Amino acid sequence: MGYPDTAEGFMIESQKNWQDFKKQEFKLKPFEDRDIDVAIDCCGVCGSDVHTINGGWGDCPLPICVGHEIVGKAIKVGKDVKTIKVGDRVGGGAQIQADLTCNNCKTDQENYCPNTVDTFGAPYKDGTISQGGYSSHIRAHEYFTFKIPDELEIYSPLVRLGCGPGKKVAICGLGGLGHFAIMWAKALGAEVYVLSHSPSKKEDAMALGAKEFIVTNEDEWYKPYAFTFDFILNTADAVHKFNMPNYYSTLKVWGKFHCVGFGDEPLPQMMAQDFAPNGCSFGASHIGNRPEMLAMLDLAAKQNLKSWIQKVPISKEGCAEVVDKVNKNDVRYRFVLTDYDNEFGKRT
Amino acid sequence: MGYPDTAEGFMIESQKNWQDFKKQEFKLKPFEDRDIDVAIDCCGVCGSDVHTINGGWGDCPLPICVGHEIVGKAIKVGKDVKTIKVGDRVGGGAQIQADLTCNNCKTDQENYCPNTVDTFGAPYKDGTISQGGYSSHIRAHEYFTFKIPDELEIYSPLVRLGCGPGKKVAICGLGGLGHFAIMWAKALGAEVYVLSHSPSKKEDAMALGAKEFIVTNEDEWYKPYAFTFDFILNTADAVHKFNMPNYYSTLKVWGKFHCVGFGDEPLPQMMAQDFAPNGCSFGASHIGNRPEMLAMLDLAAKQNLKSWIQKVPISKEGCAEVVDKVNKNDVRYRFVLTDYDNEFGKRT
Repeated sequence: MGYPDTAEGFMIESQKNWQDFKKQEFKLKPFEDRDIDVAIDCCGVCGSDVHTINGGWGDCPLPICVGHEIVGKAIKVGKDVKTIKVGDRVGGGAQIQADLTCNNCKTDQENYCPNTVDTFGAPYKDGTISQGGYSSHIRAHEYFTFKIPDELEIYSPLVRLGCGPGKKVAICGLGGLGHFAIMWAKALGAEVYVLSHSPSKKEDAMALGAKEFIVTNEDEWYKPYAFTFDFILNTADAVHKFNMPNYYSTLKVWGKFHCVGFGDEPLPQMMAQDFAPNGCSFGASHIGNRPEMLAMLDLAAKQNLKSWIQKVPISKEGCAEVVDKVNKNDVRYRFVLTDYDNEFGKRT
Repeated sequence: MGYPDTAEGFMIESQKNWQDFKKQEFKLKPFEDRDIDVAIDCCGVCGSDVHTINGGWGDCPLPICVGHEIVGKAIKVGKDVKTIKVGDRVGGGAQIQADLTCNNCKTDQENYCPNTVDTFGAPYKDGTISQGGYSSHIRAHEYFTFKIPDELEIYSPLVRLGCGPGKKVAICGLGGLGHFAIMWAKALGAEVYVLSHSPSKKEDAMALGAKEFIVTNEDEWYKPYAFTFDFILNTADAVHKFNMPNYYSTLKVWGKFHCVGFGDEPLPQMMAQDFAPNGCSFGASHIGNRPEMLAMLDLAAKQNLKSWIQKVPISKEGCAEVVDKVNKNDVRYRFVLTDYDNEFGKRT
């Protein structure tokens, strides 16, 4: 076999041995007319990679190849592809397909399509399981392929929550998603407050554009901020340890606590009454839609926004190192697996 | 003593004997320049009366006189009162005072004032505990006194959630609040769906203005309604028994599940992930503000909206009967305690 029938990637065979990556061949979905084959050059490492392989989010199809922050070169495009040509530098995120015909898709909510296919660990119609970017190639639908890659999960909720000039926005958690959130919220014109239990991250938060850094494991940290924030965007995955009413108390009337970090544990026990003092709400969302993605990339280009990354060459050991460190929160602020040519050869 | 220093009302002395009402004198707060004394004519019976006296919502100051759907006649007005004169027929709701100086109050969010005083069971600055409408008189601040009374907790969230023409709104629970919610949502122009586990209430729901009645204890009731509702307004207090992801699945992208019914039990265990398939959120709120109250009364007058009520003369036995039946959900749809003159005499 081999490409174009298969790709090869670093895969996990058991959630018990989730740092034991093995280079294996896997089947690519049948090529269709709007598909694009990408020879991957590098891939960011997201906490969701770790939650998937270590079983924190439950079972997943095995073996699995994770990774959904993918950059590479288009090496083959289907006959109906209009936006990408062979040779383009392209990126892909956490969604690889949708039906593009349902009401959600037709109203630019394809990121909430009930027939969505995630970039890894999800079945296509023919039964092939999607596999992610710790690999040589990915076969992606044009609609989910972009000329410049970046982090998807932050921009959409910021915009939908009304982030902009005159707004006071709190970003909770300063990890990979958090560092993006500070940059984006600031770029969108809001006043950014960072809520973190790690005082050592203050300097980074300020350098990323925060106005204030609030240490949330100090007693009564929330008291000076009663009714202050338009919303809190939570990027931490340890919400189960939070005292939610303290966080809620810092929200303006009808303010929102919104999660983009998904933990392994259930949320803390809550009462409907907890929301009543300011009529606030709790919500969560995943990635954005294509128009938001394009707007985000445009803003990034205009403001020259750059992620803070640490590069690690892809290999069995490199994969193990990055998931271990992400799991331990030992990253400032995003690992990127690189040097794919060394591992997988030149792919054309 | 006696009025104007004290009023008398049907009070509960112990949460263990929460149906044992005793007619007792209680102290009124010191009269101030924007206060109004109301000789009460009748009072609606809310589930919150029951949750308070039976301890479902925790401890309360004892003895206590509940009731916050109050109608009566103004018999004394402070020298700075501008909107009410002696002899006016007036009503009051669940809030009796706020500081009226904080940022929330100054922006018409006085219903979320951190120094709010609830109509019963809350301390005034001088230490007097507020007492509710199962009584001869209430001393109310002008700002929380209205020329026509009606249900407060429903209109505000409906409006803030965007209820109006073109919107599909689900009302969950058809009790006292639910029957108001159907009428108001319909009056505001929305298409109203009722979610209930009591098939016997279908006829009433349709008569109140519902377009469709959905029985939520049927298997897979939610499947035909995937991505359908702009929001669900929950008036039921048994949310702890709900399978939340089923309800969430009926919401449009970024739709809202909003509680105005507050149960005695914590909410069901939830994961942030539960919200991700459509980016929905969970929230709750209590009463509305004064501008919303005035707009609601205006709409009620224009559309001739009338609550469906059952009258019970106020007495030791009458109070016991209504709280017992509300507790058992045996009311269609609102008890009103009446005939105050018989019990308390003519008060002027």
